[in-house]
Amino acid sequence: MSGLILHEYPASGNCYKIRLAAAQLGLPLERRSYDITKGETHTPEFLRDINANGRIPVLQDGDRFLTESNAICFYLANGSRLIPDGHYDQADMLRWMFWEQYSHEPNIATLRFWLRYVGIEALADPQRIQIAGKRDAGNAALALMDDHLASRRWFVADRFSLADICLFAYTHVADEANFDLEAYPAIVRWMEGIMTMPEHVTIDA
Amino acid sequence: MSGLILHEYPASGNCYKIRLAAAQLGLPLERRSYDITKGETHTPEFLRDINANGRIPVLQDGDRFLTESNAICFYLANGSRLIPDGHYDQADMLRWMFWEQYSHEPNIATLRFWLRYVGIEALADPQRIQIAGKRDAGNAALALMDDHLASRRWFVADRFSLADICLFAYTHVADEANFDLEAYPAIVRWMEGIMTMPEHVTIDA
Repeated sequence: MSGLILHEYPASGNCYKIRLAAAQLGLPLERRSYDITKGETHTPEFLRDINANGRIPVLQDGDRFLTESNAICFYLANGSRLIPDGHYDQADMLRWMFWEQYSHEPNIATLRFWLRYVGIEALADPQRIQIAGKRDAGNAALALMDDHLASRRWFVADRFSLADICLFAYTHVADEANFDLEAYPAIVRWMEGIMTMPEHVTIDA
Repeated sequence: MSGLILHEYPASGNCYKIRLAAAQLGLPLERRSYDITKGETHTPEFLRDINANGRIPVLQDGDRFLTESNAICFYLANGSRLIPDGHYDQADMLRWMFWEQYSHEPNIATLRFWLRYVGIEALADPQRIQIAGKRDAGNAALALMDDHLASRRWFVADRFSLADICLFAYTHVADEANFDLEAYPAIVRWMEGIMTMPEHVTIDA
């Protein structure tokens, strides 16, 4: 890996995960920003040169392009201290990363995007009718995390791993979607553990 | 790994993936079935002994329990021919597996469950209003797969991998959600390649 370029929307937690993993690993990333609220990932040039699917983040490594935030994190971290040893612990780490994309991100990140970036008055009916369900599912996800962390410092194998990075990204900005993080004390303690690490970078850095 | 037990709802594509990966690897699985339409994964016993989250599939390996279908497949296949060599190809395989859970399963699998197992007349309003969006997103997912497969036999690295297994599970029953698979000839050819493999097992086996 060399000359890594991250094509991103900086406020996206999915893009931030990658910057956070790279910072933890000491890997330099060149950043190229696109405003998804202005359609900048759907221009003919972006669709032709970066991602025909019109989605970010995209990691460019030479002439290879990789999508899906958690897969990009795995690519950067493969063989590093951010992935535990042992087949069970590796699968358990991926368990949390798949859970994040299925049970956490579609609720917490989507509500954040709708409420903070789109605006509730601009939502369509099929979106507005899902708010209550996503609120409940988001709180259920946070409660599950809080239960897990009540007796543990990190999600997997007693060590800081990609599971923590991928879950931190949207959890630490859940207040922007009007989730009350103070109701989840184990999550607050876990977040403080991450934010005080020397390699840490913030989402607006 | 020994004495593996799969706690499952047999008609679920997420459970079928695991049986298909295990069959490809020659790993015996003991199967325990629960009818999710009758609440059998929300009994006090299931929540206490198997998964506090009330979800299947769960893989039990001795006293360890693993959730998330694609993480379970990774656990079974780690170090096998079903995972390509090389950091980029491994990440590219995971890319398709994350994409499956984010952009394919919530559309195609959810429509299949709603239309075939719940029944359209039993859906709540927040579900019914999402049908059109999920139909469009499901067809977009199938079109993206078809484009990718137009010039390739397998999804990643010119070899059959977990990406193919995880995408096959709900794709090959997409007709049960009223998707027209005949409109995607490269997908049909790819499915035939999987179904004719000597290790293959069917979803109703």
